[in-house]
Amino acid sequence: MKKTKAERKEELEDTIEANPFITDEALAERFDVSVQTIRLDRSELRIPEVRTRIKQLAETNHDDVRALQNEEVIGEIVDLQLDEQAISILDITDDDVFTRNGIARGHHLFAQANSLAVAIIDDAFAVTGRANIRFTRQVYVGERVVAKAKVKKRSPGFPVITVDSYVNQTLVFKGEFVMSRGKEA
Amino acid sequence: MKKTKAERKEELEDTIEANPFITDEALAERFDVSVQTIRLDRSELRIPEVRTRIKQLAETNHDDVRALQNEEVIGEIVDLQLDEQAISILDITDDDVFTRNGIARGHHLFAQANSLAVAIIDDAFAVTGRANIRFTRQVYVGERVVAKAKVKKRSPGFPVITVDSYVNQTLVFKGEFVMSRGKEA
Repeated sequence: MKKTKAERKEELEDTIEANPFITDEALAERFDVSVQTIRLDRSELRIPEVRTRIKQLAETNHDDVRALQNEEVIGEIVDLQLDEQAISILDITDDDVFTRNGIARGHHLFAQANSLAVAIIDDAFAVTGRANIRFTRQVYVGERVVAKAKVKKRSPGFPVITVDSYVNQTLVFKGEFVMSRGKEA
Repeated sequence: MKKTKAERKEELEDTIEANPFITDEALAERFDVSVQTIRLDRSELRIPEVRTRIKQLAETNHDDVRALQNEEVIGEIVDLQLDEQAISILDITDDDVFTRNGIARGHHLFAQANSLAVAIIDDAFAVTGRANIRFTRQVYVGERVVAKAKVKKRSPGFPVITVDSYVNQTLVFKGEFVMSRGKEA
């Protein structure tokens, strides 16, 4: 049975709060309504569109990257709490995919995750030592990849960072990065 | 005791044959002579300079990449035997390093190795499934990275490729890639 409008709006609000990066298109698919309906719901709920939500997050909600110049991060950082967690988004463009089939090349997802793992370190110097990664679903041109990094093990020498990357809540990449920090070995 | 000129020339010839990508600067350091001396030795031995050697290898000695358009390989392929082994070189430029310390960013070494692992597959479709990588020595701007890929396990579904990358014979990156081929999963 289709949800009532009130039910849908409540769930919509929860969904966007849990995942501010979700697009109207993905919401429309999830709630089985038109994009137009989602826009109307959002406007009634006074929830801005995804681009604006991301901008707001990017402007307000993060510490300063220490180990990297900001422009060295692949993707756009929208949340950063040093030595805790970080989130970045990367929109896959024509330049990032195999010409033959439109599938995103692995090293772009790796670069997003790896630079986020460097950015999260609260130190002026941090590089990657080891990584164990898995590509769990192919990513296509036009998709938006949300990478979520967490510090799994704090360590003065070799912190461990996990990064899970999603397209519309589907896991597409999973990585564990053992970093090296605090010295130029 | 310093080697005689004849001894040095013989060893020089062996060294270049074993590692055609070695620069005159690295040879000079290894043999503890000037770059000028190395150039003279090479000219007497009729061994062309490194750029020419690489070009010759690139022109003559490889199969055609199947899973990638040629320009999609990060680095320059100088040897490719499909489902066997492959070699590529990547010169680290200012664009590839952290501005703060001139250290190459991990994802460039990863991209070189990963695209070589894709290129080696004798199939029209191949992507990376999993990878286990290690950065063993930092790489600096101006250095040349030689990546050597080998097919460790042949498999119709999930071949395993190992890639070892070197700067002047020093291992800087090591990776094992489990690929997925032959279907657009």
